[in-house]
Amino acid sequence: MSLPEIPKSLIPFLQEYLPKDVPDRTVVTLTYAQSLDSRIAAKKGEQTKISHIETKTMTHYIRSKHDAILVGVGTVLADDPKLNCRFRIPGEAASHPRPIILDPHGKWAYSGSQLRQIAATKQGKAPFILIDNTTAIDPREQQALEDQGGRFVKLRFDNKDSPVKNWDLILQKLNDLGIGSVMIEGGATIINDLLTAPKLVDSLIITIGPTFLGKEGVEVSPISQVSLKEPKWWQGTQDVVLCARLNLFYTSI
Amino acid sequence: MSLPEIPKSLIPFLQEYLPKDVPDRTVVTLTYAQSLDSRIAAKKGEQTKISHIETKTMTHYIRSKHDAILVGVGTVLADDPKLNCRFRIPGEAASHPRPIILDPHGKWAYSGSQLRQIAATKQGKAPFILIDNTTAIDPREQQALEDQGGRFVKLRFDNKDSPVKNWDLILQKLNDLGIGSVMIEGGATIINDLLTAPKLVDSLIITIGPTFLGKEGVEVSPISQVSLKEPKWWQGTQDVVLCARLNLFYTSI
Repeated sequence: MSLPEIPKSLIPFLQEYLPKDVPDRTVVTLTYAQSLDSRIAAKKGEQTKISHIETKTMTHYIRSKHDAILVGVGTVLADDPKLNCRFRIPGEAASHPRPIILDPHGKWAYSGSQLRQIAATKQGKAPFILIDNTTAIDPREQQALEDQGGRFVKLRFDNKDSPVKNWDLILQKLNDLGIGSVMIEGGATIINDLLTAPKLVDSLIITIGPTFLGKEGVEVSPISQVSLKEPKWWQGTQDVVLCARLNLFYTSI
Repeated sequence: MSLPEIPKSLIPFLQEYLPKDVPDRTVVTLTYAQSLDSRIAAKKGEQTKISHIETKTMTHYIRSKHDAILVGVGTVLADDPKLNCRFRIPGEAASHPRPIILDPHGKWAYSGSQLRQIAATKQGKAPFILIDNTTAIDPREQQALEDQGGRFVKLRFDNKDSPVKNWDLILQKLNDLGIGSVMIEGGATIINDLLTAPKLVDSLIITIGPTFLGKEGVEVSPISQVSLKEPKWWQGTQDVVLCARLNLFYTSI
């Protein structure tokens, strides 16, 4: 299914929040869609439609502006996502970002995934899987991945059980891999952690759909108060989109 | 301090969500301001500034369109609010709503409150306090209240420990008292409960401020999924405002 056109007003709205070239550092855009009650899914492990098709087009447009998309292992296990870019500038070739999967314990199997089919049919790139250097790698998985241009990337996580505490390390590794910009899409643990890391996050792009997913949903809420600067809203058919930057220090708005 | 003027575009935006006369029933508008992570306060018992001054003016404008404002005892204990209407149509007299305090156990003391000062100086009306008919009433409190035109209203709550489960009863009593419309402003327990009562709530008006209050904040999230109909957004200098109605049945958006 092809995506509808992006609403014209979204392009200038997003522009200043999209990555610029920064030498020696990977630029980070944190982006997700939430309900009014700040849930990104109705249940753990359940993909939930929150946003309108026009904001889905927006997601693919934003993907086209990044070298890579990063998600946690929980997201690939729950959603089996494609992580490709379906946004096209007419007449231009597809520009797919590199999927980056944060999977220190090697819980995810690439060989049976939709991502593999996407890579096999050239509809997207094979992923780089960030894995702890003490985790054993299945040689067949490694072969399947490398056959399509993906790879396991070994990292010495400071804290293997809480990979999200290793963002300096992870972003340094992405920079070493030549990735100039990464769009981080989730899940909730990663989002909550990065919301309190203003030095690492360049832009925040949040879509809010007018619905409540309820108490049982997967919640975004950082451990502490976080204030934003340069907030700017866009209003769609059904949703609103907020672009902003994280404040280095908390100040009451 | 006088409020700034209401942004002109807010008046037509709000119009169809404001109460209309309905015979034999009290019309309910549920309204609150939240952070992105659906918190209405940074901590229990702590009043938190979330919204811009222009949306504060909006709150007073909405109050001017209602016969009464209802809040729970937790809100009066935490915030000691004025619950009056500071919105004026030039040349017209003030139109203050009647504060309704839901306090089945009689935990709140009117005599030491800001509400009493407001009533004494004619800047607002004295409240009606909804109290369980088995709760003892302090005669001095009763006198203070009645001297200024307020009163205790006895109700036989079905469940005294969970007054929010008695909405049919409460709204029937408000109707008996001649209150045609009530704006319900909080706190979180009341909001969460009413979000799952589509038959009782006529309109929902939510202000969202671009900030995160964090995990420790007071959360709005209903017990189950709730979908909305007729959603409409307004965009202010800093915040967005959503007007909508609750769907009678859950349907995926």
